[in-house]
Amino acid sequence: MTPRFDITGIGNAIVDVLARVDDGFLSRHDMRKGSMTLVDAETAEQLYALLPPGEEHSGGSAANTCAVAASLGARVAYLGKVAADQLGAVFRHDLAASGVYFPSSPLAHGAPTGRCLVLVTPDAQRTMHTALGAAVTFGESDVDETVIADSAIVYLEGYLFDPPAAQAAFRRAARIARAAGRKVALSLSDAFCVDRHRAAFRALVRSEIDILFANESEVTSLYEVNSFGEAVAAARTEVEIAVLTRSEAGSVIVHGGETIAIPAEAARVIDTTGAGDAYAAGFLAAFAAGRGLARCGQQGALAAAAVISDWGARPRSPIRRVN
Amino acid sequence: MTPRFDITGIGNAIVDVLARVDDGFLSRHDMRKGSMTLVDAETAEQLYALLPPGEEHSGGSAANTCAVAASLGARVAYLGKVAADQLGAVFRHDLAASGVYFPSSPLAHGAPTGRCLVLVTPDAQRTMHTALGAAVTFGESDVDETVIADSAIVYLEGYLFDPPAAQAAFRRAARIARAAGRKVALSLSDAFCVDRHRAAFRALVRSEIDILFANESEVTSLYEVNSFGEAVAAARTEVEIAVLTRSEAGSVIVHGGETIAIPAEAARVIDTTGAGDAYAAGFLAAFAAGRGLARCGQQGALAAAAVISDWGARPRSPIRRVN
Repeated sequence: MTPRFDITGIGNAIVDVLARVDDGFLSRHDMRKGSMTLVDAETAEQLYALLPPGEEHSGGSAANTCAVAASLGARVAYLGKVAADQLGAVFRHDLAASGVYFPSSPLAHGAPTGRCLVLVTPDAQRTMHTALGAAVTFGESDVDETVIADSAIVYLEGYLFDPPAAQAAFRRAARIARAAGRKVALSLSDAFCVDRHRAAFRALVRSEIDILFANESEVTSLYEVNSFGEAVAAARTEVEIAVLTRSEAGSVIVHGGETIAIPAEAARVIDTTGAGDAYAAGFLAAFAAGRGLARCGQQGALAAAAVISDWGARPRSPIRRVN
Repeated sequence: MTPRFDITGIGNAIVDVLARVDDGFLSRHDMRKGSMTLVDAETAEQLYALLPPGEEHSGGSAANTCAVAASLGARVAYLGKVAADQLGAVFRHDLAASGVYFPSSPLAHGAPTGRCLVLVTPDAQRTMHTALGAAVTFGESDVDETVIADSAIVYLEGYLFDPPAAQAAFRRAARIARAAGRKVALSLSDAFCVDRHRAAFRALVRSEIDILFANESEVTSLYEVNSFGEAVAAARTEVEIAVLTRSEAGSVIVHGGETIAIPAEAARVIDTTGAGDAYAAGFLAAFAAGRGLARCGQQGALAAAAVISDWGARPRSPIRRVN
């Protein structure tokens, strides 16, 4: 029987606060451009107070992927933890309005909905500080077995390795998916996230993952190699399909003996937030529709180009479809 | 002595939810394009559920004016009522980060922070539905006498005539300002708002207002005339300075025997939300800096052009200054 969903994403449910800063702001506050840093609620408040006016967009890496994939026609579900507060309601609305099924119940008491302070520099790079809030409570019991077993692909966000209870949730989701004969995909999310959890990621990729998404710095960090070529060679032996993105240099899909190079789509870059999330969305939506790997990569490139051409991680206008 | 503030704005403190819809959405839901409709919390929830994914920006007409005026170098304060909740904290942060002094204490119990659902159609027009929430409680006791008496201009938002307690607050603010020898400015906000409160606005303009801001439909509604020319003639006898905006046809400043026509600045229009608020900000910032009326109008036109060239009511990039 055809599964009910093409993709079920699991990740940290987060609302983004986008603000424009200059490079001097990053250096004055010892921030690594392009990175995601976890901060506690108090540090997030202190940093927020220093920021210029912002705007709030629903975010979360896997949630972005889910929203974009749904906009491309995929049938999508998402699991993640928000609080029963205003930002949680915004997050829930935006997913539902994107056509994503979001059965997770909100956290009734305790931490507020997680927030990510996204600092966008004039070069369109983003530097992020995340207060996980309610997302930190996501655990094994939040893994909805019915949804995952009824989804062609389960898509796991690497960031979800950070909250302590979530690794177990991850493994449970992968186990359920594989038992139901489904595909398991993982995005490594961030080179520093890989650094924090390298051994666990390596073991997971080898034993549980069918499709690995990573950018160049993430995959070289995962395999502790110095060049993209070495990373490609390592990925080829460790995972069925590796989808490796290289910003404006395009992407490379590695599958058995095949190596498929996909050029990046031209774009006037405004804000790179969500580029990797959108690429994964395009790839997976095409994959779920039975397209060949080259077409999947092209759809990923088109989705990424749409997202980086505007503010925020979810495009306001329809994304161009591959032929 | 130089007053501490150039401008103190008073208005409905609101967070905007911006969402893109097509014209069919408006007609299916019997909405008047370009209008602002007051709705209760339940209706707002029902409408929100129908909307596509949105993004949240601090809004409120006078608050937008204050933020933009501060970005142009004016010393600005704002009075308005939010709740002690997440959207209230966002509103407060964005004003403070814009350099606006915001002494109003939040509403501790009761309604949440007000929200405005801003539906942007492909022609860049916006149609708004506002649930006032905590803003409805703004009253005489919220009028900070020290701040108003120490401000060269008090700027009143016409929308604030809608909450029942606010008309008295308005009058008190005008009285304090005039007793301290300050200027009182009023924006009519919306033609339907003028319809709801025509007699009160006419009396207020005649007796208390030094600078009136209105667009063509607002000023013709105020004086119940059929042409812009008749409205100009009426305004000339009723108020010291009338600043009348006509979208792409520019603006007209009427002051005693003078009539100054200001062309609109060229812009690629993305979203007209906040155009009038920004015009008032540019005008008042220049006025407070002692510029002549023509320069004030030109600064208004530059601010409006900056705001309509991007999403939202407060520009992300610096506004060009008049010479």
